[in-house]
Amino acid sequence: MQIAILGGGLIGASWAALFLAHGHSAHVADPNPAAPDYVRDFIRKAWPHLAQLTPDLPDVAPLERLSFTQDIATACAGAEFVQECGPDRIGPKQQIVALAETTLAPDVLIASSTSSLMASDIQAQARHPGRILVAHPMNPPHLVPLVELVAGQKTDTDALIRAEAFYQSLDRVTIRVQKERPGHLANRLTSALYREAVNIVAEGIASVADVDRAIAYGPGMRWALMGPHLIYHLGGGPGGYRHYLDHLGPTQEARWKDLGEPKLTPELVAQLVQGLESEIAGIDPDDLETSRDRALVALAKLKQGLPF
Amino acid sequence: MQIAILGGGLIGASWAALFLAHGHSAHVADPNPAAPDYVRDFIRKAWPHLAQLTPDLPDVAPLERLSFTQDIATACAGAEFVQECGPDRIGPKQQIVALAETTLAPDVLIASSTSSLMASDIQAQARHPGRILVAHPMNPPHLVPLVELVAGQKTDTDALIRAEAFYQSLDRVTIRVQKERPGHLANRLTSALYREAVNIVAEGIASVADVDRAIAYGPGMRWALMGPHLIYHLGGGPGGYRHYLDHLGPTQEARWKDLGEPKLTPELVAQLVQGLESEIAGIDPDDLETSRDRALVALAKLKQGLPF
Repeated sequence: MQIAILGGGLIGASWAALFLAHGHSAHVADPNPAAPDYVRDFIRKAWPHLAQLTPDLPDVAPLERLSFTQDIATACAGAEFVQECGPDRIGPKQQIVALAETTLAPDVLIASSTSSLMASDIQAQARHPGRILVAHPMNPPHLVPLVELVAGQKTDTDALIRAEAFYQSLDRVTIRVQKERPGHLANRLTSALYREAVNIVAEGIASVADVDRAIAYGPGMRWALMGPHLIYHLGGGPGGYRHYLDHLGPTQEARWKDLGEPKLTPELVAQLVQGLESEIAGIDPDDLETSRDRALVALAKLKQGLPF
Repeated sequence: MQIAILGGGLIGASWAALFLAHGHSAHVADPNPAAPDYVRDFIRKAWPHLAQLTPDLPDVAPLERLSFTQDIATACAGAEFVQECGPDRIGPKQQIVALAETTLAPDVLIASSTSSLMASDIQAQARHPGRILVAHPMNPPHLVPLVELVAGQKTDTDALIRAEAFYQSLDRVTIRVQKERPGHLANRLTSALYREAVNIVAEGIASVADVDRAIAYGPGMRWALMGPHLIYHLGGGPGGYRHYLDHLGPTQEARWKDLGEPKLTPELVAQLVQGLESEIAGIDPDDLETSRDRALVALAKLKQGLPF
């Protein structure tokens, strides 16, 4: 399939790597003259990781299936799918859609990677708004399988179904967000956890480093395998989730009452930054990122064999 | 070392397996006559998992280093460390401590596995309160490395330091919780995430199954490797956490405002249970648990090589 990627930054490059790994061609539009080198370099580095997760990949990234332009309309001419990865502001998004529609066939989907905007706003001035939806990945999309699909008020149901089939054909895990809300779904959950992670430091309950270690060597290990509902279902023993909620629901509610509502004042920001600096003192910054990516690949591979 | 484990339920059995794997002997006290069979069976099943995580383990669990009694004082006679795993109510806890102190040498630590009680309350009536602290694991303790240490008002600093050294010698990751608060630290974070996971269902934003998949195929994969502060530090690019907070702090605060405060009404509980049942329809219940444990072992092994 010929896919137009509108925006050749971090997210666009990662999508490009994934699309190539699944046999598609990608035409990347980006006004930045440095984008082609950046995207090619990203894909070369990502390829060995993708090779561990995708059957029968060639040893070398098929960069001949990748092309570049500075012009959105050119990238969309002949495209069979559009992954929009432009600046996350509504003005540029609507402009990108308008330019894309000048050359795009009317039934081709436009999926926006936006993390903060609503599909209804992105499609508001479109000529064919029914084919526009949000398909928000977690960074980096070629390693983290989740894609959140959100329809706008004018999105066709059929567009949602087609997008779902497309991402699933790329071994992505899709979910449907039923209402347009800030943070879609995953980032709402992330923000809920983060608020208390900040509050714990603000209240002096623990250090930044201890909060991070508590997650990564505690509940985070379970969350990599199962979501909170399923975890508590198993925590409920033979009586399952019903037993858990009947017996430990009140404990949860008591804890909810004690959670904090911190404000990111300059003083708290300084404290968080200082805490983080202590945490990473002595770790090679490059090692942080390369170890994370290596571990993420191993984890994604591990999850391929799970029944849930 | 000779360790007394007071309570032979799920947590006590898992601690016993860990202690044996690290060369210690365990004397388990539990009034339930079924406890010895339960604990032995648990350890036999856990042993192959421990063997993947611990160097040079014998093929067969050294059950000869495990003994049982129904009497707390008997278990504590000659013990060099006490891991308390009794019922999570303050009355029984104080009673267990009182019985333990009848035979225990005065400088031996008593570490409580409590998930909900305060060390200050557990030690309130003790003869030697300075050696009493909370050492709360995540379930199951032999696979999830986190141990949260919390001192009570009367706990000696030295007791905290000795407990830290002990758990670290078992390859546990210890953190210090500086204030006694409901949920210690990890379960506060878990509850914060869970509140929004419930709210999203209550508000009709997504199904129970989609919430769980969003976590397990999205942010949960990152949380298995790093905590939220470090994740956002890397998300801040070359400018790190400071850059992240300066530029995306306001987005976080905006999302915090939109998070919900659900109540676990009978109707919502019914909706959650029904959603969970749809999620697990068609998965063999045994497969859920065995796959989770297998994956948790693989994940723990994977994490052993990380620099953070």
